[in-house]
Amino acid sequence: MNLDELKEKMKLTDAALESLLPPENRYPEIIYKAMRYSVFAGGKRLRPVILLSVCEMLGGDIKKALPFAAAIEMIHTYSLIHDDLPALDNDDYRRGRLTSHKMFGEDIAILTGDALLGHAFEVMSKQTAESGDINMAKAMYDIAFGCGVNGMLTGQVVDVISEGKAIDKDTLDFIHLNKTAAMIQGAFKAGAHLASADEETVEKLNKAAEKIGVAFQIQDDIMDVTSSFEEMGKPALSDEKNNKTTYVTLLGIEGSKKVVKDLSKEACDILETFGDKAEFLIELTKYLTERKK
Amino acid sequence: MNLDELKEKMKLTDAALESLLPPENRYPEIIYKAMRYSVFAGGKRLRPVILLSVCEMLGGDIKKALPFAAAIEMIHTYSLIHDDLPALDNDDYRRGRLTSHKMFGEDIAILTGDALLGHAFEVMSKQTAESGDINMAKAMYDIAFGCGVNGMLTGQVVDVISEGKAIDKDTLDFIHLNKTAAMIQGAFKAGAHLASADEETVEKLNKAAEKIGVAFQIQDDIMDVTSSFEEMGKPALSDEKNNKTTYVTLLGIEGSKKVVKDLSKEACDILETFGDKAEFLIELTKYLTERKK
Repeated sequence: MNLDELKEKMKLTDAALESLLPPENRYPEIIYKAMRYSVFAGGKRLRPVILLSVCEMLGGDIKKALPFAAAIEMIHTYSLIHDDLPALDNDDYRRGRLTSHKMFGEDIAILTGDALLGHAFEVMSKQTAESGDINMAKAMYDIAFGCGVNGMLTGQVVDVISEGKAIDKDTLDFIHLNKTAAMIQGAFKAGAHLASADEETVEKLNKAAEKIGVAFQIQDDIMDVTSSFEEMGKPALSDEKNNKTTYVTLLGIEGSKKVVKDLSKEACDILETFGDKAEFLIELTKYLTERKK
Repeated sequence: MNLDELKEKMKLTDAALESLLPPENRYPEIIYKAMRYSVFAGGKRLRPVILLSVCEMLGGDIKKALPFAAAIEMIHTYSLIHDDLPALDNDDYRRGRLTSHKMFGEDIAILTGDALLGHAFEVMSKQTAESGDINMAKAMYDIAFGCGVNGMLTGQVVDVISEGKAIDKDTLDFIHLNKTAAMIQGAFKAGAHLASADEETVEKLNKAAEKIGVAFQIQDDIMDVTSSFEEMGKPALSDEKNNKTTYVTLLGIEGSKKVVKDLSKEACDILETFGDKAEFLIELTKYLTERKK
């Protein structure tokens, strides 16, 4: 994995977020503090890195894509803040830090999620209106499609209504496809549109993105079981404790690993058709689907 | 007031909402049911009516503006659903019906607000990308600006952090300008941009909109006191019960009425510069700032 390139794109994303989020010393301070608290909580910037890499692979201008990279991360962060709320997953900690509602109160946490979702579209529509570049409107639609009722949002809804119930593979696939893959697809499609790609190219990348998104999520499920064994000598098994149906409970560890491997291979096969320029995205796909933590 | 014209624009808005919201029989049904439950709860469609009327006044095509009219109503509805949540205003009823969280649970209510906010931008960005009309991107930005951290959202934040405290006039003005006026301004500006108006015209209407928005909110505060007297023979005074500082507590009923009258007059003076075509918007302004309920 070319870590320098990865780190460079993460740095560019952070700089864009820094400049596009309102400063903390503006009235009413608490909302700007809360927005930045969660956005700068050590996320991997996976979706922005993908968006920027796809744009670059297709010969687009990364600088123009930065507001969209920042926006997709704001949307990802909003979804985490709302997922963690007492009425949803009720998590006190994320990445070792207090969650937004534990830090700022539930009212402000709800509004902070709302603020980040709205601000993402404010940033993107401003950029689109000022540039007059209609490809930006397409990228905005890709991201809106990925996060809304055709994507992430319904994945979250099914996750919530399935809580504590045994679910079948179709339902689990629905959750993975929507809650996780849809925003990865949004990042791929938006990156392509920002590079003025034609619709055939966009659709090809959309297919690869879906496979990467699902593989990424199954790998998460696997790690929930195996990381605990390796690191602590006994299972922590947060999914099992929560009675959560995952690929591991349905197909076992080895069966799940095979699905991840197959999906990753299929995605890389598609990416390889883009030649040498796809090298970073292929490395990233392998990195995401072979990671141990 | 030309009620036929008002009703016609409300009907057009409802038809657009009907066709742009996903059907209820789609999986997972609960989120689509919840979105429609709150959107079709008998709202006045004030913001869409304004957006359509401004667009029409400036010679724009109302048909093209309809998705934006629907989107601004989705955003207004999202804000009401989240405002009503237990962690915020904790209201069980709105317009005589159970609020979203009482009907569908708090988790689904949070996600329904999120869904409506996201869907509004999905609808608008789709329309913009498909039409290639950059004025639509400007209209989308107007609406995003109105609902986000430069508008409604911060008004809501200051409302929340001021709860139970006496606040000064500056703070109250901040709340009115942001929580209420900003989205009225968004409706005016978006309607103007959708009619390809120049920036001078947009700015003129933005000024009128601000005055109308603030007057509309103060009229609400007045009605909280006077309607109760007239209708029930005794004050219900929900603001007073909640220890809420309003224009009435700061300036008294007569003082507040004068402010509303002055603001309404100033707004109408601006609208009159648009000639006969502004008649409906002038009537609407008077209707909104003279209403008793």
